[in-house]
Amino acid sequence: MEKKKVVLAFSGGLDTSYCAIYLAKEKGLEVYAALADTGGFSAEELDKIEKRALALGVKSYVRLDVSHTYYEQSIKYMIFGNVLKNSTYPISVSSERISQATAIARYAKEIGADYLCHGSTGAGNDQVRFDMIFNIIAPEIEVIALIREKRLSREEEIEYLRSHGVDFDFKKAEYSINQGIWGTSVGGKETLTSSETLPEEAYPSQLKVAHDAPAKRIALTFEKGELVGIDGKHYDDKVKAIQDLQHIAAPYAIGRDMHVGDTIIGIKGRVGFEAAAPMIIIKAHHMLEKHVLAKWQLFWKDQLSAFYGNYLHEGQYYDPVMRDMEAFLESSQRNVTGEVFVDLLPYRFVVVGIESKHDLMSNKFGAYGETMSNWTSDDVKGFGRIFGNQNAIYYAVNPDEIEK
Amino acid sequence: MEKKKVVLAFSGGLDTSYCAIYLAKEKGLEVYAALADTGGFSAEELDKIEKRALALGVKSYVRLDVSHTYYEQSIKYMIFGNVLKNSTYPISVSSERISQATAIARYAKEIGADYLCHGSTGAGNDQVRFDMIFNIIAPEIEVIALIREKRLSREEEIEYLRSHGVDFDFKKAEYSINQGIWGTSVGGKETLTSSETLPEEAYPSQLKVAHDAPAKRIALTFEKGELVGIDGKHYDDKVKAIQDLQHIAAPYAIGRDMHVGDTIIGIKGRVGFEAAAPMIIIKAHHMLEKHVLAKWQLFWKDQLSAFYGNYLHEGQYYDPVMRDMEAFLESSQRNVTGEVFVDLLPYRFVVVGIESKHDLMSNKFGAYGETMSNWTSDDVKGFGRIFGNQNAIYYAVNPDEIEK
Amino acid sequence: MEKKKVVLAFSGGLDTSYCAIYLAKEKGLEVYAALADTGGFSAEELDKIEKRALALGVKSYVRLDVSHTYYEQSIKYMIFGNVLKNSTYPISVSSERISQATAIARYAKEIGADYLCHGSTGAGNDQVRFDMIFNIIAPEIEVIALIREKRLSREEEIEYLRSHGVDFDFKKAEYSINQGIWGTSVGGKETLTSSETLPEEAYPSQLKVAHDAPAKRIALTFEKGELVGIDGKHYDDKVKAIQDLQHIAAPYAIGRDMHVGDTIIGIKGRVGFEAAAPMIIIKAHHMLEKHVLAKWQLFWKDQLSAFYGNYLHEGQYYDPVMRDMEAFLESSQRNVTGEVFVDLLPYRFVVVGIESKHDLMSNKFGAYGETMSNWTSDDVKGFGRIFGNQNAIYYAVNPDEIEK
Amino acid sequence: MEKKKVVLAFSGGLDTSYCAIYLAKEKGLEVYAALADTGGFSAEELDKIEKRALALGVKSYVRLDVSHTYYEQSIKYMIFGNVLKNSTYPISVSSERISQATAIARYAKEIGADYLCHGSTGAGNDQVRFDMIFNIIAPEIEVIALIREKRLSREEEIEYLRSHGVDFDFKKAEYSINQGIWGTSVGGKETLTSSETLPEEAYPSQLKVAHDAPAKRIALTFEKGELVGIDGKHYDDKVKAIQDLQHIAAPYAIGRDMHVGDTIIGIKGRVGFEAAAPMIIIKAHHMLEKHVLAKWQLFWKDQLSAFYGNYLHEGQYYDPVMRDMEAFLESSQRNVTGEVFVDLLPYRFVVVGIESKHDLMSNKFGAYGETMSNWTSDDVKGFGRIFGNQNAIYYAVNPDEIEK
Repeated sequence: MEKKKVVLAFSGGLDTSYCAIYLAKEKGLEVYAALADTGGFSAEELDKIEKRALALGVKSYVRLDVSHTYYEQSIKYMIFGNVLKNSTYPISVSSERISQATAIARYAKEIGADYLCHGSTGAGNDQVRFDMIFNIIAPEIEVIALIREKRLSREEEIEYLRSHGVDFDFKKAEYSINQGIWGTSVGGKETLTSSETLPEEAYPSQLKVAHDAPAKRIALTFEKGELVGIDGKHYDDKVKAIQDLQHIAAPYAIGRDMHVGDTIIGIKGRVGFEAAAPMIIIKAHHMLEKHVLAKWQLFWKDQLSAFYGNYLHEGQYYDPVMRDMEAFLESSQRNVTGEVFVDLLPYRFVVVGIESKHDLMSNKFGAYGETMSNWTSDDVKGFGRIFGNQNAIYYAVNPDEIEK
Repeated sequence: MEKKKVVLAFSGGLDTSYCAIYLAKEKGLEVYAALADTGGFSAEELDKIEKRALALGVKSYVRLDVSHTYYEQSIKYMIFGNVLKNSTYPISVSSERISQATAIARYAKEIGADYLCHGSTGAGNDQVRFDMIFNIIAPEIEVIALIREKRLSREEEIEYLRSHGVDFDFKKAEYSINQGIWGTSVGGKETLTSSETLPEEAYPSQLKVAHDAPAKRIALTFEKGELVGIDGKHYDDKVKAIQDLQHIAAPYAIGRDMHVGDTIIGIKGRVGFEAAAPMIIIKAHHMLEKHVLAKWQLFWKDQLSAFYGNYLHEGQYYDPVMRDMEAFLESSQRNVTGEVFVDLLPYRFVVVGIESKHDLMSNKFGAYGETMSNWTSDDVKGFGRIFGNQNAIYYAVNPDEIEK
Repeated sequence: MEKKKVVLAFSGGLDTSYCAIYLAKEKGLEVYAALADTGGFSAEELDKIEKRALALGVKSYVRLDVSHTYYEQSIKYMIFGNVLKNSTYPISVSSERISQATAIARYAKEIGADYLCHGSTGAGNDQVRFDMIFNIIAPEIEVIALIREKRLSREEEIEYLRSHGVDFDFKKAEYSINQGIWGTSVGGKETLTSSETLPEEAYPSQLKVAHDAPAKRIALTFEKGELVGIDGKHYDDKVKAIQDLQHIAAPYAIGRDMHVGDTIIGIKGRVGFEAAAPMIIIKAHHMLEKHVLAKWQLFWKDQLSAFYGNYLHEGQYYDPVMRDMEAFLESSQRNVTGEVFVDLLPYRFVVVGIESKHDLMSNKFGAYGETMSNWTSDDVKGFGRIFGNQNAIYYAVNPDEIEK
Repeated sequence: MEKKKVVLAFSGGLDTSYCAIYLAKEKGLEVYAALADTGGFSAEELDKIEKRALALGVKSYVRLDVSHTYYEQSIKYMIFGNVLKNSTYPISVSSERISQATAIARYAKEIGADYLCHGSTGAGNDQVRFDMIFNIIAPEIEVIALIREKRLSREEEIEYLRSHGVDFDFKKAEYSINQGIWGTSVGGKETLTSSETLPEEAYPSQLKVAHDAPAKRIALTFEKGELVGIDGKHYDDKVKAIQDLQHIAAPYAIGRDMHVGDTIIGIKGRVGFEAAAPMIIIKAHHMLEKHVLAKWQLFWKDQLSAFYGNYLHEGQYYDPVMRDMEAFLESSQRNVTGEVFVDLLPYRFVVVGIESKHDLMSNKFGAYGETMSNWTSDDVKGFGRIFGNQNAIYYAVNPDEIEK
């Protein structure tokens, strides 16, 4: 009788290594390990993951490159919406899971898998994201959440692997680092408290310039809201643009902060992060928007983006309202084209200014407080009268309220 | 025949000095000069303004202390709402005008004035704010917007004053500075462009510590959303708390940025600002809120505050919806009590963490990703199933959409 | 050994009768039956429910009158917010569950119960509402969702009751009716389809006047948003006012419609309803608001109320954001005082007009399109210029867009 | 010397007839009269308007058919958004002005006009709409708002026309009627009060069926949100579909109500309206949406549409945010395809139900409260636990709040 197939979302870590053996040995399944690579791994790391998969004796191993899908599905719209969860966090990790889960589930459909297995524990957000997306993309395939079901300790998993001849080096780092193209999260003993912050050395990038280093000015080119150039170099590959900007900014130790937010399961979570390129891109993009978008565009983008970011974080990327919001955001970017100048400095950056043919601040229409070419002071006087008309009537009708 | 009375919103500058003479000499009015002091002036500056008023021969001069009214009317709610216009600007100047215009108009009613005069030009936002608020508070008093009407040049005004024996020193500064307790705005030749930024020396506070100075940690105490303590010292006077924090933070040259926004009259305006205390207070307050407020409180506060800040900026403080929003904001602050720790560093600050008895991140309920005391992994599995139920149904009904 | 106590949310129906016996006989518990009465029962029905409880041999039976709590907790704010789910449905049933669950859980705490039992099945919304609210009000008391756990058929339950000597008349009605003071829901075979509507006779009120009956005009008095008078009669008891209005309107067969909406568990649900008094009150209240509230009050009330109604429907009454929204709504009602005239007609009603000393449409300020007392046509011309200024600039900068 | 050209927005009424003569005789301009026809006129009325223009001796007369532009620019999106101002009014008149002003201004550019003239008075909304749109579409052409400038009485205008040999019959109707394809507004002495309603005879359609006439069932077919069929007849021309539906529904005197709202100039306005087809289309469309859209789509559509409708009413169609909102709305309509059944009855209609292949209420996924195929009661139990988790924690941390 033919064995049934399981696609395992593989990361090379302890949990998914355990799954690889368990699914084969205890469940008698043919294990197809799949790594959904969103662009956060080095070539060396990718090599190590592949070697581990093969060492675990999986039937097949495949690396699914989803970095561009990830950009097109999520990053692009997070830039359009200047999405920072709670005004702080560029949603570095959670949005990645969506593209990963999607790619894994599609791969499982392609090869006609009978099961899908993810290695999320029962304590975090990822299990909900994986469960929901597997169920949407491949509702006909049964999901095995092995780690959640078994609730084993680290030691038990290591012991089990050893008993099957696997003796990888699973040392537990002091700080758990989760690296992606849209930022790196850092967890550790301080992030389990409410009152302490991460030590300098916990962050992946260390300051490589002097504390009083002069500003390094860079020019970012945006086209319809997307980063397409750095210092005059054009990028067709927008993922590469982000990676190059990260490389330029990293020596300045920029974009660190602490995120405190609501998890999908209702408790508060706290995590440090470092996200130089995402923070610079979002702030530069936003500055450009302030020049080229109209007042209510800026307002409504913020209203929608707050929801969009939260809901994305909760793994609800596939809610159809997200497509409607993306249509709004995409429409709003039609003139978000121009250059933004940014100064990189130790631990911080300054958005210097912009140049755009869509700049609404052009002197042709009167500089603020200086000249007026298109209207008269009588126009403004009349405007003030009518703009305040309803309130004037309101207080004439309700004179008692004005005393407050 | 008795002369008619005019109350002049006086600042001691060229425009209002011109008004003081013109209203008396050309219009034959009895001039009551009134300074609405929101707390931005030093004792020395206040003295100079009073001397000028008297030198101009006004019938009376009065300083109206509105700093605490200003705090109660606007600053408090801008803290509750973490109000930063376009995610950047603490609305340093525009919200002041409201309390000033209100105090001036009330004073005019008290003394039975026949006219109200403000010195705003026809090119900015302030004229609209003054016109609207004068018309709401004192609709029976006619408004004279003398500078807007006369459209004189600087030189013409100086010449006119000289011809009446007034020869103050009205030198035009390279950078126009507008100082208040909620921040200082800085305008200059760079802010008339879209692409340049202010030079270091244009800012009021200069870095007084070394570039590699160690962090200075301070503790801010909030009670129902209001700053009531710094490093253990309690403040009954919340205006004083802001001023003291500003004094502590100024040597670090913190809180500088460039604001680009939509003016009331529809054009884009750009201005530099420095606002150490406001930025620290808002970011510290927001961090505390992330720990003590529920998810949807954070969401809706942001939705309302975006409108509240914009509308306040447009001088619409007296719109009755503002009272409704303040009721929402006030209600939301009932548990925003605790301490926030902040590190001051050269040109920047870091919100380290918080301590609060209302902290929802208490370990008692399970640290994120670590332990679970109040629910099981089966609960989460069930949650994921139902939380994703509608989307699962949606794609079963509309399978074509999943291919996108 | 003493028996453990269970409080049973009792309704007198089949499911909770089954629970009463099962909890006592199989689980050996002391059963305290409690009916949370929101005002939808007649004296006769209340009597029948009590008799059944006693016949089932419960240790104690108590009727908790929650009609006024229900009004103060939910109905009042649903009026303030003109809450109609999906612009149609006055949330007749779901909001009741909140006050019921709260009262039951508080009663359980009072008597020191060990268990709480509700009779909701596993297929609807109510189980989620009861579970969540029991867990909030009395987290220390274990919840037994007996019907959900046992998954018995109607017949099995009846058989079990008979075997214990209970032989009530549990006939299944063709249409399931759920009557409350804020409306009556009607389910039946048509509501299980998407395309059919309920027959005339399924509704609780039948038309008692002629098809061409003349309009019956009534006058409703509101005070700060609450209905306090009908045709000149003042009500201190606002629940009574609603009940009396229902009595007046019922012969006109008013307020019927079909609600289609999203259930808590993600599927779509469809139900008929008849809610004469709620529909008349909401529409009359809204008309009064259109006269006394300012533009942005009307706008933001709608934005918040849409969420408030949805979240209330989902049983999330205890989310702290709901208190913040209620503070907003309460503040907005400070001038919603006046009389509203309504014509009752067969199957429909017409809101005729209002009278209020807070009416902003007073002729003193210029009737629309007729006279202007407080501003000139030049003011309006100026207003139009400035109101359209940003867009004029936008198209001057982006001339290509105007061709669309 | 060649005469300068003026394009006059002509309606055949007293004001624009006065303009036609005055512009030619007193200003020496070549008058190009243009009627922007949005589809509200009969062939007979169109004929009369043309005859009048020619009798007034204009240089040229042209009828610009903008009914389809009007549909594409506004009506379509008002259907997508279920736009009813203040939940009541289908924005019958104000949205028309936008397409009219646009067409007139484009025509003026085409023929190289020197001036644009509209006949709006200084007391209403239309002047602002015309001024703003003329200034956006044709900023280089000077606008003459002749009626606003001259402020003549009816009698003076009639006298002036007579003195130039024009003696049309300008009798002032008791009720001013403004007829369009998206509804007819009715003003009269009652609408100047707050407390009275229009008499039956003031409405354009009179009941033509018996008071107890049986329901006439019609089937409306929607495709991606647009009405494309009535009772099986397909319409390529969607304007025709609206007109035919209006014809079918008119004998039932459906869609009458009183609109009270905020005018652009800040005062409250009140007007009666009758809009059978618009009300039926919007309510039928909304019912279909409740079946085929997801929960948050329904929510966010409402949030955006409230603003969209208000801003459209204020003549701000050309604000770029409107295009972004239309992109959202258009995206949301991708599955709004199906049939809706409606019963027409005297003075009212009932939306019976729908049929759609996109119906999310399909029995396949479990009818509400009946069966469950895709999830278990344990799933729902777990869901309730996690869905209520944050609030349970909140009250454990803040136990005092639960007493309220």
